[in-house]
Amino acid sequence: MQANGISEEELFSFLSLKKGEDSNYHHVLSSMCTIPHPVAVRAHQMFIEANLGDPGLFAGTASIEELLIERLGTLFHHPKAGGYATSGGTESNLQALRIFAKMKSSRRPNVVVPESAHFSFEKACDILSLEMRTVPSDETFRMDVDALQDRIDENTCCVVAVAGTTEYGVVDPIRVVSEITHDAGVPLHVDAAFGGLVIPFLDPEIPFDFALPGVSSIAVDPHKMGMSTIPCGSLLVREPSWFGLLNVETPYLTVKQECTLAGTRSGGAVVGAFAVLEYLGMSGMKAVVEGCMKNTRRLIEGMETHGYRRAVTPDLNVATFEAGAVPPGWRVSWTRRGHMRTVMMPHVTRDVIEEFVRDIGEMDA
Amino acid sequence: MQANGISEEELFSFLSLKKGEDSNYHHVLSSMCTIPHPVAVRAHQMFIEANLGDPGLFAGTASIEELLIERLGTLFHHPKAGGYATSGGTESNLQALRIFAKMKSSRRPNVVVPESAHFSFEKACDILSLEMRTVPSDETFRMDVDALQDRIDENTCCVVAVAGTTEYGVVDPIRVVSEITHDAGVPLHVDAAFGGLVIPFLDPEIPFDFALPGVSSIAVDPHKMGMSTIPCGSLLVREPSWFGLLNVETPYLTVKQECTLAGTRSGGAVVGAFAVLEYLGMSGMKAVVEGCMKNTRRLIEGMETHGYRRAVTPDLNVATFEAGAVPPGWRVSWTRRGHMRTVMMPHVTRDVIEEFVRDIGEMDA
Repeated sequence: MQANGISEEELFSFLSLKKGEDSNYHHVLSSMCTIPHPVAVRAHQMFIEANLGDPGLFAGTASIEELLIERLGTLFHHPKAGGYATSGGTESNLQALRIFAKMKSSRRPNVVVPESAHFSFEKACDILSLEMRTVPSDETFRMDVDALQDRIDENTCCVVAVAGTTEYGVVDPIRVVSEITHDAGVPLHVDAAFGGLVIPFLDPEIPFDFALPGVSSIAVDPHKMGMSTIPCGSLLVREPSWFGLLNVETPYLTVKQECTLAGTRSGGAVVGAFAVLEYLGMSGMKAVVEGCMKNTRRLIEGMETHGYRRAVTPDLNVATFEAGAVPPGWRVSWTRRGHMRTVMMPHVTRDVIEEFVRDIGEMDA
Repeated sequence: MQANGISEEELFSFLSLKKGEDSNYHHVLSSMCTIPHPVAVRAHQMFIEANLGDPGLFAGTASIEELLIERLGTLFHHPKAGGYATSGGTESNLQALRIFAKMKSSRRPNVVVPESAHFSFEKACDILSLEMRTVPSDETFRMDVDALQDRIDENTCCVVAVAGTTEYGVVDPIRVVSEITHDAGVPLHVDAAFGGLVIPFLDPEIPFDFALPGVSSIAVDPHKMGMSTIPCGSLLVREPSWFGLLNVETPYLTVKQECTLAGTRSGGAVVGAFAVLEYLGMSGMKAVVEGCMKNTRRLIEGMETHGYRRAVTPDLNVATFEAGAVPPGWRVSWTRRGHMRTVMMPHVTRDVIEEFVRDIGEMDA
């Protein structure tokens, strides 16, 4: 640290410079985050000092967190789901596995995860000392359910299915998975970090949530397709009492127990997430999601016109291609199998898609 | 979720109502968070969409994170410390233990923690399946170093010391602890979540940081005494390469590996933390800390005038008392031993202290 401070003017001119080194999301097709919705930003600002880790001091913010969970629970066909706002998908997935590992209390617990799952499961299993067993994907990059049964044994504490894979934007056959896990008496955690705020607004809806009796818990991140500010993930569980397994005593706080991973938690981002859902409602979210899906279909069509074949027809707003080169100035990413991967987040407008398709076409020429 | 959205006006009038149920911090003596500094709020707003989980997209924000870590490392007498911005003290403490448990690779690793330690260690040990051994406190609520040696054995992967206990605001005798752990070849993690941005500005300074050869890692939370917005904690380690133990592969991101607990991470809060330190500098932080310490001494004096004896003379801006009742409208908390606990954060001004002392006096009358 410097001996003396600098002026606010000097400080913010330095920060502006640094801001210029950040992407402005304009040509970013690789991200599952997006420019937050203006009502999220305004709400976050309003609750900027709120700490959900001390809910007795921030009773208003805490009640908004409850409302957010209730809204998400209702959306997922279980208004009485338990839940809380996490720092994001990794915490949600980790905490779900933690609950189910505690329920099982096996000496050598394992978790069965599709090979398409997000790398946060590798992290979570490492942290929790759980064996991670992977289920291969079928040719559409969805979980091969025929291979699932073999992976489950008496030490399996949880099966994971993905509702919207990060890489290919496909949804695992969760109805079938749910039947298998329900019959086997094994909890099923659905990682819908991305898809949880897409699928309910699709027509027809793809089964993935608590309407399926085998689904025990769902992770969904408002800071992805919920257009909230960072950090706002959430974990919902079928039985609110399950969170009791994670409780520690919290002396010197306004509440006596805490089941969350973090202590201090951002209230602002949580109010922001709630604000977006309230402001847009089902109809507004449908319009956003329809726009993203339309852009996804348009990109696939445009890319195929130029000879770049889709890797798969996605369920969600992620498009992947057999393509090798990227026009300069664009950000795309690559799947582990080497496909070009793009995500049509709300900031990726129709104009951006057309510009990208044109640039792709010019590379050919 | 509702079928149709609501207007922005309707939404924000509801949020205002909820905001009214939150504390405004005015009569809050129980919190280690505070009203964020205006430059932190402004900086957070400016970088509200930045995601440190994808540093290739946010190169400017990522370089500010590096600067923040460098500033903190320098403050802690080790400019070349490795580090990253966490969601808060719990993540920092958990990640430190995770590093040291991996280094040890014992089948039954244990962690030795003072009984005064924050409950996040209980959480972290539960999550990481580590045995937690506690060291009793002496009569000043500091770690009883005579009892430390007994707790360490060949399966001890880490010893924890606290630089600023949550309950009593005292600093463990870290110089002595550091000698013991150094001799034993056991890493020493210092939880300075609260004190890390207090102690360096005290006169005389209390030894707690990398200047002591035994100290391996330090947790410090800018969102406490650093007056940043939530969430901004940080973990610093003596050897940057240690974070390699935590790496997972991150396909489809702009970087190839990730050692953090969370994936998506708030850039705004991190820039906010950096902004406060730059704006205030050493001299500004000293002034803030001196003010808090003066208020702490004044509260102790005022309380003792009314016959409420201090539980201990604190090192930091936490004051605890043998007192039973609280004047109405005030928020204090209680230690596990039943002492009244108050924290003189920057929002607890001299006027607030005088008001509290007066209200305490009137209860007597």
